[in-house]
Amino acid sequence: MNFIGAGLAIIGAAIGAGYGNGQVIAKTIESMARQPEMSGQLRSTMFIGVALVEAVPILGVVIALLLVFQG
Amino acid sequence: MNFIGAGLAIIGAAIGAGYGNGQVIAKTIESMARQPEMSGQLRSTMFIGVALVEAVPILGVVIALLLVFQG
Amino acid sequence: MNFIGAGLAIIGAAIGAGYGNGQVIAKTIESMARQPEMSGQLRSTMFIGVALVEAVPILGVVIALLLVFQG
Amino acid sequence: MNFIGAGLAIIGAAIGAGYGNGQVIAKTIESMARQPEMSGQLRSTMFIGVALVEAVPILGVVIALLLVFQG
Amino acid sequence: MNFIGAGLAIIGAAIGAGYGNGQVIAKTIESMARQPEMSGQLRSTMFIGVALVEAVPILGVVIALLLVFQG
Amino acid sequence: MNFIGAGLAIIGAAIGAGYGNGQVIAKTIESMARQPEMSGQLRSTMFIGVALVEAVPILGVVIALLLVFQG
Amino acid sequence: MNFIGAGLAIIGAAIGAGYGNGQVIAKTIESMARQPEMSGQLRSTMFIGVALVEAVPILGVVIALLLVFQG
Amino acid sequence: MNFIGAGLAIIGAAIGAGYGNGQVIAKTIESMARQPEMSGQLRSTMFIGVALVEAVPILGVVIALLLVFQG
Amino acid sequence: MNFIGAGLAIIGAAIGAGYGNGQVIAKTIESMARQPEMSGQLRSTMFIGVALVEAVPILGVVIALLLVFQG
Amino acid sequence: MNFIGAGLAIIGAAIGAGYGNGQVIAKTIESMARQPEMSGQLRSTMFIGVALVEAVPILGVVIALLLVFQG
Amino acid sequence: MNFIGAGLAIIGAAIGAGYGNGQVIAKTIESMARQPEMSGQLRSTMFIGVALVEAVPILGVVIALLLVFQG
Amino acid sequence: MNFIGAGLAIIGAAIGAGYGNGQVIAKTIESMARQPEMSGQLRSTMFIGVALVEAVPILGVVIALLLVFQG
Amino acid sequence: MNFIGAGLAIIGAAIGAGYGNGQVIAKTIESMARQPEMSGQLRSTMFIGVALVEAVPILGVVIALLLVFQG
Amino acid sequence: MNFIGAGLAIIGAAIGAGYGNGQVIAKTIESMARQPEMSGQLRSTMFIGVALVEAVPILGVVIALLLVFQG
Repeated sequence: MNFIGAGLAIIGAAIGAGYGNGQVIAKTIESMARQPEMSGQLRSTMFIGVALVEAVPILGVVIALLLVFQG
Repeated sequence: MNFIGAGLAIIGAAIGAGYGNGQVIAKTIESMARQPEMSGQLRSTMFIGVALVEAVPILGVVIALLLVFQG
Repeated sequence: MNFIGAGLAIIGAAIGAGYGNGQVIAKTIESMARQPEMSGQLRSTMFIGVALVEAVPILGVVIALLLVFQG
Repeated sequence: MNFIGAGLAIIGAAIGAGYGNGQVIAKTIESMARQPEMSGQLRSTMFIGVALVEAVPILGVVIALLLVFQG
Repeated sequence: MNFIGAGLAIIGAAIGAGYGNGQVIAKTIESMARQPEMSGQLRSTMFIGVALVEAVPILGVVIALLLVFQG
Repeated sequence: MNFIGAGLAIIGAAIGAGYGNGQVIAKTIESMARQPEMSGQLRSTMFIGVALVEAVPILGVVIALLLVFQG
Repeated sequence: MNFIGAGLAIIGAAIGAGYGNGQVIAKTIESMARQPEMSGQLRSTMFIGVALVEAVPILGVVIALLLVFQG
Repeated sequence: MNFIGAGLAIIGAAIGAGYGNGQVIAKTIESMARQPEMSGQLRSTMFIGVALVEAVPILGVVIALLLVFQG
Repeated sequence: MNFIGAGLAIIGAAIGAGYGNGQVIAKTIESMARQPEMSGQLRSTMFIGVALVEAVPILGVVIALLLVFQG
Repeated sequence: MNFIGAGLAIIGAAIGAGYGNGQVIAKTIESMARQPEMSGQLRSTMFIGVALVEAVPILGVVIALLLVFQG
Repeated sequence: MNFIGAGLAIIGAAIGAGYGNGQVIAKTIESMARQPEMSGQLRSTMFIGVALVEAVPILGVVIALLLVFQG
Repeated sequence: MNFIGAGLAIIGAAIGAGYGNGQVIAKTIESMARQPEMSGQLRSTMFIGVALVEAVPILGVVIALLLVFQG
Repeated sequence: MNFIGAGLAIIGAAIGAGYGNGQVIAKTIESMARQPEMSGQLRSTMFIGVALVEAVPILGVVIALLLVFQG
Repeated sequence: MNFIGAGLAIIGAAIGAGYGNGQVIAKTIESMARQPEMSGQLRSTMFIGVALVEAVPILGVVIALLLVFQG
């Protein structure tokens, strides 16, 4: 039963992270192409943003690992 | 049974956080590229916004941890 | 059975809060970049709005906690 | 069985409230930025609107609480 | 079994009310900002509209209450 | 079993009524703001429209009540 | 088993009627505001349209009633 | 088992008819408002179209009736 | 078991026919209003198109009838 | 069990054919109204296209018939 | 069990082929109407494209046939 | 059990291939109509793209065949 | 049980790869038609992009193969 | 049970990675075609972005491998 729980947790974590990061990074690249002189600042904001987005999914991966080694 | 509950909780927490943060940060980066002189103020609003968005998902992660160590 | 109920409650709470807050904060940041002279008023409205949005999800988290410690 | 019912009720209540409030408040902030001289009137309409939106979800939370303490 | 029925009823009631009210009130606020001289008439139409939208969801909440006290 | 049937019926009735009424009333308010001199005629058409939309959902609520008192 | 069938039938009937009528009436009101001199003709077409849309959902409600009194 | 089959058939028939008719009639009303001199021709095409759309859903309702009186 | 199969077949047939016919007829009416001098040709193409769209759903209805009288 | 398989096959076949044909024929009619002098060529391409779209759904109907007469 | 597998395979094959072919052929007809002098080249590319799109669905139909005659 | 696995694998393979190829080929035809002098280069890129898209679905078909002959 | 797991893995792998590759290649072809002088650079970026997109789906296919030969 | 968990994990990982990477790479190629002089910088940002997107899905694949070799 915990193996299915781990699978469900990975579904949420990977789709959430993929959606959020995809949005953030795609917008960053689009903005960098529109305003090249700000690319440094935008890229550093992107790194902070990606770290903030991945906080919860990484916790979800940790919980999935806990569930795998529970059984 | 509690392992599946933990998996379901992570689905909600990660997708909710990923969607919300992705929207907030992508709009911030887009606005920073459009109005560079406001980037400081926008970034600080972004930090507050991300913290507000992640309040409920973090509680969801806590509940998932409670469920994992319940069984 | 109550563990699955807690997981379902967290799904709703986190996705609802993530969607609602994401909309509110993203629109705030977009509007601040368009009208910088109103940023104070917009940000205070954003705080009220986030608090109103999170009212029901926080109640959902409380019910999830009740369910976890029920069993 | 009533615990799962409570979880389902919270799913509906939180997503409904999150969607409705998110729409209302985001549009309010967008309109305030477009017409600053009407911000008082818009904000008071927003408070009425949020209260009207949250009427049914709050009833849903009450029913979820009844279900939790039923079992 | 009736507890799950109550949960399902609340899902429908809350999402229906949240969607309908969210649409109505958001459009009202947007229209008030565009035509300030009509705000009284629009707001009174909004109150009638919200009452009409909430008619069926409130009946759904009543049925959910009947189901809770049935068991 | 009839309790779950009642819950399903309420899901359909409330979401259908919420969607249909939300569309009708939101468009009415938008049109009233665009053409103030026609607001009386639009509002009376809205009342007829809402009554027509709610015909089937109200029948659904009646069937849900029949199901609740069947068991 | 027939009670669940009745619930499923109401889901379809109410959502179908709500969607179809919502589309028809909303477009009618929008068109009346754009061309006030045709409002009589549009409204009579709307009545015919709503009757045509509701033909199948009403049959669905009849079948749901047959199912309720079958058991 | 045949009662659930009838319910499923009604879901399909009502949603299909509601969607198809809603599209056809809404477009007709929109086109009549844009070209009033063609309203007769458009309305007669609408009647043919609605009859064509409802052919399969009516057959679905007939099958649902067969299923109800089968058991 | 074959009754549920018949219900599933009707779901597909009615939704497929409703979607396809709705698209075809709505576009025909829109095009007739834009180019009145071609309305005859467009309407005859519409008849052919509707017949082509309904080929597979009608076969689905036939299979559903076979399933109903199988049991 | 094969009856449910037949029902599932019809769901796929009818929705796939309805979607594909609806797209093809609606675009054909729209293009004929925009360029009347090409209507012969467009209509013949439409016939080829519809035949190509219906190849797989017809095979699906054949398989559904095999499944019906299998049992 | 293999009959349900065949039904699932047909769902995928028919919806995939219907969506893909519908997109390809609709775009071809739209482009032919916009650039009549290229219609030969576009139509031959369409034939290649349809053949490429139908490669995997046809394999899916073959597997469904294998499953039907397996039992 | 492996027959259902094969059916699920075909669902994914056919929908993935149909969606991906449909996008690629439709865009190719649209671009060829807009820039006829590049049609050779675009068509060769399309062949490479279709081959790359179909890599994983073909592997999925192979796995489905393995599953069919496993049982 | 592992056969169903293999089927689920292929669903994810094929849909993920089909969606991702379809987006990448379609955008490449669109951009090549808009800027023919960059087609070499765009095509080489496309190859890198497709390889990056297919990394995880190929791993999913490998896991599906492991699951097939596990049983 | 762990095999199904592995399949679920791959669904999430592959769809998340496919969606996120597809967005990022497609936007990169579009931006490179619009601003050729920035293609080096955009491509290096794309590599970082893809690596960040694939972090969580790769962890999901690792967990799926753990689940496969668990049983």
